[in-house]
Amino acid sequence: MNLVVDIGNSATKIAVFQSGELIDRTAFATKDFFKKFPVFFQNHPEIEQAILSSVVNEVPEIEKELQKHFELLILDQNTNLPFYNLYATPETLGKDRIALMAAAVGKYPSQNVLVIDAGTCITYDFKNDREEYLGGAISPGLEMRFRALNQFTSRLPLVRADEQEGLIGNSTEGSIRTGVVAGTTMEIEGFIDAYLSENKNLTVILTGGDTQILSMRVKNSIFANPNFLLEGLNCILEFNKTQ
Amino acid sequence: MNLVVDIGNSATKIAVFQSGELIDRTAFATKDFFKKFPVFFQNHPEIEQAILSSVVNEVPEIEKELQKHFELLILDQNTNLPFYNLYATPETLGKDRIALMAAAVGKYPSQNVLVIDAGTCITYDFKNDREEYLGGAISPGLEMRFRALNQFTSRLPLVRADEQEGLIGNSTEGSIRTGVVAGTTMEIEGFIDAYLSENKNLTVILTGGDTQILSMRVKNSIFANPNFLLEGLNCILEFNKTQ
Repeated sequence: MNLVVDIGNSATKIAVFQSGELIDRTAFATKDFFKKFPVFFQNHPEIEQAILSSVVNEVPEIEKELQKHFELLILDQNTNLPFYNLYATPETLGKDRIALMAAAVGKYPSQNVLVIDAGTCITYDFKNDREEYLGGAISPGLEMRFRALNQFTSRLPLVRADEQEGLIGNSTEGSIRTGVVAGTTMEIEGFIDAYLSENKNLTVILTGGDTQILSMRVKNSIFANPNFLLEGLNCILEFNKTQ
Repeated sequence: MNLVVDIGNSATKIAVFQSGELIDRTAFATKDFFKKFPVFFQNHPEIEQAILSSVVNEVPEIEKELQKHFELLILDQNTNLPFYNLYATPETLGKDRIALMAAAVGKYPSQNVLVIDAGTCITYDFKNDREEYLGGAISPGLEMRFRALNQFTSRLPLVRADEQEGLIGNSTEGSIRTGVVAGTTMEIEGFIDAYLSENKNLTVILTGGDTQILSMRVKNSIFANPNFLLEGLNCILEFNKTQ
């Protein structure tokens, strides 16, 4: 059994995998790690190996805690990856994007795969059918767009996504909701169409915190999978076991 | 001859119109108004009437200065407008969006018109062939997206638009440039397509500070007109002369 620990800017996600399948997961504020982790661990005493990915600079105490119990792989620039990294600046490639590409290779080998991760930022990442990672794009996520419109102007209110928005917002709040949610949906559809025009056989994965709100709006054929990043970290752990 | 004064958050634009045609314009930092305006005015002694639009809260000294020389119309919520305003919250409709719709009516009467103003924010505004303004959308502008990615994350650099960006950015800077510039282009194309699917005869105007960078990228048929807002203010002034 594998443990996957993904430490983000505010939240930490942990998951247990058995034979490649996610069998349990939980999420909590990163600051609550030492309260929440022991409880989770009690329910899964069979875990033998773990992988840790952190976008926060240094988490030495969490590393030490995990190393007490498991053989621990810490994802960093020297970790062996199951794809050819053609990114021009691999040292600046985010760990989240690395994990997503590992999942694309692990779950969709020999296919062209575009992974769209809609979280704080929206990242677009592409690997071709020769398992080459080529790069992608980064744009602001839904909440970041709402926040920017409010903070970087003097007169616009802070708005949140809602059930529905029309094509034509007939109030300031409605206009913002349409501009952000419909606008982001159109951006995503535009990127998918652009990749489709260059790659006939294309699998598209949508993941991240805004998966639900966006997957019901995007017209293209996509797989919505909120656990894709965790699955990718497990793929990296499995890949390194066999090295 | 008409004078049009448009005071924005940072820049002020002034223009002279003769028989509906813009014959001279200039722009400067709003704080330099009392240095720059007299010089401009010296070259155009024939101006008789003026319109002032300000998104900055109060500019009483500028108003006083203009009133010394001209019959002045100050654009506010009580100004007569040459279109039917069906916005649910007309009191929160920005003056820039009002001016753009006045230009749409003045220059494209009895047509369906979508005006896209790509500045600090990107505003989408629609009036139909019955001169009814219905509303639209507001999303972050190019620079706002670059700034948000930098300020609202801990690890992304501040990037600026450049000559060209591919579909696949192969560095962090390249990914951000693609996500922002190509992403915004796709959003704009998506909105135009959505309006086109509901309005067969549609005229699309692209204006605002990012007109050039976006007009060369957007694939749809559009009219790029960086002076559309100034023309709209002149339309409002003309409309109120005849009331």
